[in-house]
Amino acid sequence: IQNTFRIEYDTFGELKVPNDKYYGAQTVRSTMNFKIGGVTERMPIPVIKAFGILKRAAAEVNQDYGLDPKIANAIMKAADEVAEGKLNDHFPLVVWQTGSGTQTNMNVNEVISNRAIEMLGGELGSKKPVHPNDHVNKSQSSNDTFPTAMHIAAAVEVHEVLLPGLQKLHDALNAKSKEFAQIIKIGRTHTQDAVPLTLGQEFSGYVQQVSYAMARIKAAMPRIYELAAGGTAVGTGLNTRIGFAEKVAAKVAALTGLPFVTAPNKFEALAAHDALVELSGAMNTTACSLMKIANDIRFLGSGPRSGLGELILPENEPGSSIMPGKVNPTQCEAMTMVAAQVMGNHVAVTVGGSNGHFELNVFKPMMIKNVLHSARLLGDASVSFTENCVVGIQANTERINKLMNESLMLVTALNPHIGYDKAAKIAKTAHKNGSTLKETAIELGYLTAEQFDEWVKPKDMLGPK
Amino acid sequence: IQNTFRIEYDTFGELKVPNDKYYGAQTVRSTMNFKIGGVTERMPIPVIKAFGILKRAAAEVNQDYGLDPKIANAIMKAADEVAEGKLNDHFPLVVWQTGSGTQTNMNVNEVISNRAIEMLGGELGSKKPVHPNDHVNKSQSSNDTFPTAMHIAAAVEVHEVLLPGLQKLHDALNAKSKEFAQIIKIGRTHTQDAVPLTLGQEFSGYVQQVSYAMARIKAAMPRIYELAAGGTAVGTGLNTRIGFAEKVAAKVAALTGLPFVTAPNKFEALAAHDALVELSGAMNTTACSLMKIANDIRFLGSGPRSGLGELILPENEPGSSIMPGKVNPTQCEAMTMVAAQVMGNHVAVTVGGSNGHFELNVFKPMMIKNVLHSARLLGDASVSFTENCVVGIQANTERINKLMNESLMLVTALNPHIGYDKAAKIAKTAHKNGSTLKETAIELGYLTAEQFDEWVKPKDMLGPK
Amino acid sequence: IQNTFRIEYDTFGELKVPNDKYYGAQTVRSTMNFKIGGVTERMPIPVIKAFGILKRAAAEVNQDYGLDPKIANAIMKAADEVAEGKLNDHFPLVVWQTGSGTQTNMNVNEVISNRAIEMLGGELGSKKPVHPNDHVNKSQSSNDTFPTAMHIAAAVEVHEVLLPGLQKLHDALNAKSKEFAQIIKIGRTHTQDAVPLTLGQEFSGYVQQVSYAMARIKAAMPRIYELAAGGTAVGTGLNTRIGFAEKVAAKVAALTGLPFVTAPNKFEALAAHDALVELSGAMNTTACSLMKIANDIRFLGSGPRSGLGELILPENEPGSSIMPGKVNPTQCEAMTMVAAQVMGNHVAVTVGGSNGHFELNVFKPMMIKNVLHSARLLGDASVSFTENCVVGIQANTERINKLMNESLMLVTALNPHIGYDKAAKIAKTAHKNGSTLKETAIELGYLTAEQFDEWVKPKDMLGPK
Amino acid sequence: IQNTFRIEYDTFGELKVPNDKYYGAQTVRSTMNFKIGGVTERMPIPVIKAFGILKRAAAEVNQDYGLDPKIANAIMKAADEVAEGKLNDHFPLVVWQTGSGTQTNMNVNEVISNRAIEMLGGELGSKKPVHPNDHVNKSQSSNDTFPTAMHIAAAVEVHEVLLPGLQKLHDALNAKSKEFAQIIKIGRTHTQDAVPLTLGQEFSGYVQQVSYAMARIKAAMPRIYELAAGGTAVGTGLNTRIGFAEKVAAKVAALTGLPFVTAPNKFEALAAHDALVELSGAMNTTACSLMKIANDIRFLGSGPRSGLGELILPENEPGSSIMPGKVNPTQCEAMTMVAAQVMGNHVAVTVGGSNGHFELNVFKPMMIKNVLHSARLLGDASVSFTENCVVGIQANTERINKLMNESLMLVTALNPHIGYDKAAKIAKTAHKNGSTLKETAIELGYLTAEQFDEWVKPKDMLGPK
Repeated sequence: IQNTFRIEYDTFGELKVPNDKYYGAQTVRSTMNFKIGGVTERMPIPVIKAFGILKRAAAEVNQDYGLDPKIANAIMKAADEVAEGKLNDHFPLVVWQTGSGTQTNMNVNEVISNRAIEMLGGELGSKKPVHPNDHVNKSQSSNDTFPTAMHIAAAVEVHEVLLPGLQKLHDALNAKSKEFAQIIKIGRTHTQDAVPLTLGQEFSGYVQQVSYAMARIKAAMPRIYELAAGGTAVGTGLNTRIGFAEKVAAKVAALTGLPFVTAPNKFEALAAHDALVELSGAMNTTACSLMKIANDIRFLGSGPRSGLGELILPENEPGSSIMPGKVNPTQCEAMTMVAAQVMGNHVAVTVGGSNGHFELNVFKPMMIKNVLHSARLLGDASVSFTENCVVGIQANTERINKLMNESLMLVTALNPHIGYDKAAKIAKTAHKNGSTLKETAIELGYLTAEQFDEWVKPKDMLGPK
Repeated sequence: IQNTFRIEYDTFGELKVPNDKYYGAQTVRSTMNFKIGGVTERMPIPVIKAFGILKRAAAEVNQDYGLDPKIANAIMKAADEVAEGKLNDHFPLVVWQTGSGTQTNMNVNEVISNRAIEMLGGELGSKKPVHPNDHVNKSQSSNDTFPTAMHIAAAVEVHEVLLPGLQKLHDALNAKSKEFAQIIKIGRTHTQDAVPLTLGQEFSGYVQQVSYAMARIKAAMPRIYELAAGGTAVGTGLNTRIGFAEKVAAKVAALTGLPFVTAPNKFEALAAHDALVELSGAMNTTACSLMKIANDIRFLGSGPRSGLGELILPENEPGSSIMPGKVNPTQCEAMTMVAAQVMGNHVAVTVGGSNGHFELNVFKPMMIKNVLHSARLLGDASVSFTENCVVGIQANTERINKLMNESLMLVTALNPHIGYDKAAKIAKTAHKNGSTLKETAIELGYLTAEQFDEWVKPKDMLGPK
Repeated sequence: IQNTFRIEYDTFGELKVPNDKYYGAQTVRSTMNFKIGGVTERMPIPVIKAFGILKRAAAEVNQDYGLDPKIANAIMKAADEVAEGKLNDHFPLVVWQTGSGTQTNMNVNEVISNRAIEMLGGELGSKKPVHPNDHVNKSQSSNDTFPTAMHIAAAVEVHEVLLPGLQKLHDALNAKSKEFAQIIKIGRTHTQDAVPLTLGQEFSGYVQQVSYAMARIKAAMPRIYELAAGGTAVGTGLNTRIGFAEKVAAKVAALTGLPFVTAPNKFEALAAHDALVELSGAMNTTACSLMKIANDIRFLGSGPRSGLGELILPENEPGSSIMPGKVNPTQCEAMTMVAAQVMGNHVAVTVGGSNGHFELNVFKPMMIKNVLHSARLLGDASVSFTENCVVGIQANTERINKLMNESLMLVTALNPHIGYDKAAKIAKTAHKNGSTLKETAIELGYLTAEQFDEWVKPKDMLGPK
Repeated sequence: IQNTFRIEYDTFGELKVPNDKYYGAQTVRSTMNFKIGGVTERMPIPVIKAFGILKRAAAEVNQDYGLDPKIANAIMKAADEVAEGKLNDHFPLVVWQTGSGTQTNMNVNEVISNRAIEMLGGELGSKKPVHPNDHVNKSQSSNDTFPTAMHIAAAVEVHEVLLPGLQKLHDALNAKSKEFAQIIKIGRTHTQDAVPLTLGQEFSGYVQQVSYAMARIKAAMPRIYELAAGGTAVGTGLNTRIGFAEKVAAKVAALTGLPFVTAPNKFEALAAHDALVELSGAMNTTACSLMKIANDIRFLGSGPRSGLGELILPENEPGSSIMPGKVNPTQCEAMTMVAAQVMGNHVAVTVGGSNGHFELNVFKPMMIKNVLHSARLLGDASVSFTENCVVGIQANTERINKLMNESLMLVTALNPHIGYDKAAKIAKTAHKNGSTLKETAIELGYLTAEQFDEWVKPKDMLGPK
């Protein structure tokens, strides 16, 4: 039936709709008017699924307010299929459409209407007995449903992908921090040799960063949990019922297990998407954290002979076709590319978020696309980075010890005993001659070998006294 | 055969490869190690096609340098299929992989090798008689092929999508500028009423912007036309032949009809991607231009009753399901969302471009993904905006005349006749009383109706004297 | 004494220091090595003042740990002068110096040392009896003091400038929202006419945005209140005393009245500045909110004849020298320029924040400069915008009523009575003929004048039923 | 006279003006209305100087068109003083004012008027015989003068600061590239060991980057050389004379020695500032280049014992107060901070550039501030980086040789002689045992010492064959 068509109508005229699709005329019209970017630019599936949840919740509430239960039930079943991703092929529209997402709302209404009609034994496209506008979209407007779906999609993605990914990374880094607690190594500031710390301490900084990343994202969520549903066209709630907003939010909360509430001010909820800019900002900060961690790990793992070489990273794939034995920190590279993308996405979200006018921000599809992109990439990359890199990191203790013991910065420990000036003389002489601190110190006659060994103990340099 | 597998090997061991795919073990391994983002994140098809062109060119040159013609020919044919997009399904890898794009280079090598083997009657995965490394990748390295493919893909997309789209938009705006040449309207500065200009003049500014957008993009192309091929692993050209670089660039130029040359400095060509940052910058400027134009058009077309209402935009789809007669500037919205995305992509490209280290920048896949995304979106959106909006724009001359004639700023024309102070008095009185300049001027006794008509002529206010 | 010099030394040799300055050799050396950008690029004064607070706190704690009370007291007094801004002229260094801010830390140490020496009757530059390193910098390192000063400066600026400015704006918008509660006006979505709302409702959206802006900034502060002091060179706290970190944080809290605590992980506190990226992100979101509000206000106030004209903005300065009576929304313009700057600053902070390496992020001065810039601009601009624009905004009720009553979107109210199709017919006919809904409805014979007046009541369209 | 005042008037009333200042009432009013950011936020001096040049040129042309030569001459002299920076103290206005820069244009008009009056023996503030509007601003509007001054200022800063700075850096890098031409070193890709290249080749990549940076900036200049002067209020040139635009551009060209021309389309020149976005984009690309170069140099110079240690960077200031002998790559740090700032500035310029409306972009002061900031910082930082770092860089040849000879990647040279598999075995065994390639190869019995020495010659690995 793939190549057969039915005729459907919208107020602009008739259009041919593929018989194997549930969508209708308005969806087809949008595909004709917005040929921008191709299939990879389709509205993200999490938005479609969120619409499924919303439409199901609205049908339930509409039934409470008097919608024919037969119709309501059919809508709920069809909406559930949308929410479960069973009808993904029926959503062909791209992000680059109306800035309110109206056409995607209509796509959803059409699909649910036709699927419900089918379940009830009706004819596709007849709009009977389930009308896409009068029933599926009842008490709703694109202007409040699309931002509601945005928030549902963002919250679900954060909880299902982003936070679990970060938690996994956090736990793996934390385990490494404990595993490496006793390994004393040279510190580096300004990328230059500095006084020592333990490798576990170094990793503890990463653990803190990821821990705060999760805290930051969670701190942005309360405003994401606020739903615009009930605001309808301009935020006043015209054509909806008192209580509809609160009931829909409660239903969505029940369906998702997330603490959604109705937005306290619907004008803000339609006209601005500051909450998404905020969430994107939290992900931008997370990107900075992950960029720093991945950069450190690839530099600490650089080598095998001519780099820092303190870490041994897992080998996951063949290295160069020319150079045998070459292992590249590919997981670090994927992670840092993701970080750069998230920073860019954040600017797109920021520009969109700043350009709303009057009662409606019309950068909605672009904004949610970028927010979801960032959440998914950060979550997935965290898992990939953890499983294919972090858990397999080994300390190259031999190399770490060698670098640490050769370090001129250990001279710092001599300051209280022989004074800063003599200590400086030792360090500079050793540096010039390429000799060790100990042999230089003895040669200069400032102290004995025994004194050196007693005074210069890296393990005493790891904290305050 | 979809569910059957063959066993292939890489240096890490054996892997199951689907029998209906031409790719091999390294590709499969990458799909296992980089589960980041799903199918929408696959390496953009223009990169794959560009690799097809490059591999074909390299095979030709390698034949000149002695590669068995039978093997070379099979590679060329298989590469042509890749270049033509016939084998798109065989490239499953995502952007978020090795930052050098090594795995995509190997994916290409494997697909071409196996397809060539198939053409020659061999066994898939046997690497005989066409070896992915020894033959398809001969005289090449991922480090020089991937940036070469980046430049080819970017140049092709600019020439096939971006520039034609902008040209189309330019021409449509130019036609409107001429069509509107005689329509005098109120000017607006600071969004406030100002002295008049013609609607044609106003559109001429847009024409100039798009004209310069094309100039800017073309100005960035010379450095995009420079190809890294011949630099191999670190830029020295180790393991390739003298002349290989120049010959490959010439072949690519012949195959694409674009003036590619070999990069004068291969170290820069591998370690930095400033040329892509530059091109992205030109597209960022273009995004600013298009944002301005689309914003103007939607505000000038706002209404129908409570907006500026000077332009009548084409109605392309049903308006609100609640509000009959509502027409939204949906093409302007798609365009401004695209502009915001391009600005964000530019930051991602910038961050990636600034973070190369030593002999290699490892943000390659991310950078080219964003550059291609911007080029495609800007090109497609320009066409959509032109066809579905610009060409159908009508001037609402009645409204334009009304606003222009009511304008208090026409008082400026009286300055030379009655002085600034009296002119100011007229304007302020008219503003306070909501009266016209003419009736106020007469009422104040400053001039006669005839004098007003003679002195206040908007068509004399359109240029210097 | 301005043109006389004294000779001071650092470990690199002797340098001429102006006799009328308290700074010493390391400061002079930095002015020679970093001639970048001129006086406007000097380290922001809030950082200098924050250093004053920190050095005072450190001296108190050092006295607890045994520092000679005479020296400690002199340091405290001199540090107080720095904190009070009395010695601002003695800090000539620019932001573009060492990325750790070491030279500014030394500048502070030198100024406090010399000022303390002066108070104690010693000779400037003698380092006796108050040594810049041994006494003023005791138990400290640039690597922990500079980030500590960053956090103090940011927190103080947020509390003294940013939050009060936003609160002022919030309150003024809230008052306007209440003042305008009864004014019914046309809504606008997609910049096009839509169903009505009150002007008070429209402003309530702005109130919500600013309210959330403050909430977002406050949500970022807990991590700003964490101080790095006590981490010394690499985060271990080498050369400081157990308890020093906690005591210093408590002193700083007491001196500032802000809830500073010691950072739980000093490695993170030196090597990453995610907390500043986070705060910058909150300000970036605020910038989006303020851009939207200021844009709306200037468009709603556009005119006087050819714009939307619903708001009357205060006239603050002469308009055009050519065009009498021209009033420009200059405060909106300053605000939107500030918003753009904050978005740019945020990217600079993001890039800096992502590029730390190992034990130290060396983009510190740049990061804090941008954070302070954003905080100051947003705070100041909010006050200026409030005092010179918001408080003086008047509703142009005549214009608002006219637009509202002419609106075709009121037809929506007829749907339940005569059906969507007839309502649409009315709206489209009225639009084509330029007539009112009422006269068109009667003319078409769909209803009577009395029915129209009874059914079309904008004040019944302001909420759910 | 500092504390005495004169009374001046604008159309809003009287204001007290300090007697020692040349500015007048409108300037004072702006200082009262825009208390945003303090003295560091003042309009950049290059803009003020550019206004001096423009006002001088306009006076000359106005004289050609009939302006009283006595008045014209006085204006020219006063304008010259502005252009020479002699009156900088008389420009107190901040960037955060009207988005058209009107108040700065009036500030300039007032200062030149009063200074000219003073020269002619008149009374300050009397507006006689030289009126700020009628004479100094003759045939001009803020809307065309401010963008003209923006372009003049940008072009001058590019030519006086940015390009000379980059040229200096280019030449120094080029000299180093030649100096290091014979030093063979290990290459690094993915931050991991790779095949060799010369240090001169590595630096040649930097040379190419800086060379292209200059080319990019120059490529953006043609559109910067276009001046808006002559467009007056909305671009039509109302109230100016035919030929005025061309003559003014020619005068400015003569005064500056730069090829300024009149903009071909004044509507674009007032309503959009794409040319500045473009120039900012070229500087953004330059920032990426310089970030890469500075990053490489600091990592190659990392150590002294635990880093890569291939370069020895000049010691410019004392290192750590705790750690004797510590040298930090402070010039690299200043440069990378500058790069981050330029990337941020670019986003601010982009946001401003995209938000123009109708006949005027009102983000002008913010845009030019950021463009000038970027140009100055890049230019100054290039000089500082060159003088204090690049020229003093030494190769640590001992270290370079050691790393290169230890490298396992040299095994690549054995592929043609013993095959990839045996070569791989050697590399992996050597890596595991920590032994050299040579001893491992011999031990495994694959070749003799003589063969190894003959086949493994790094100097034969530096180019194609």
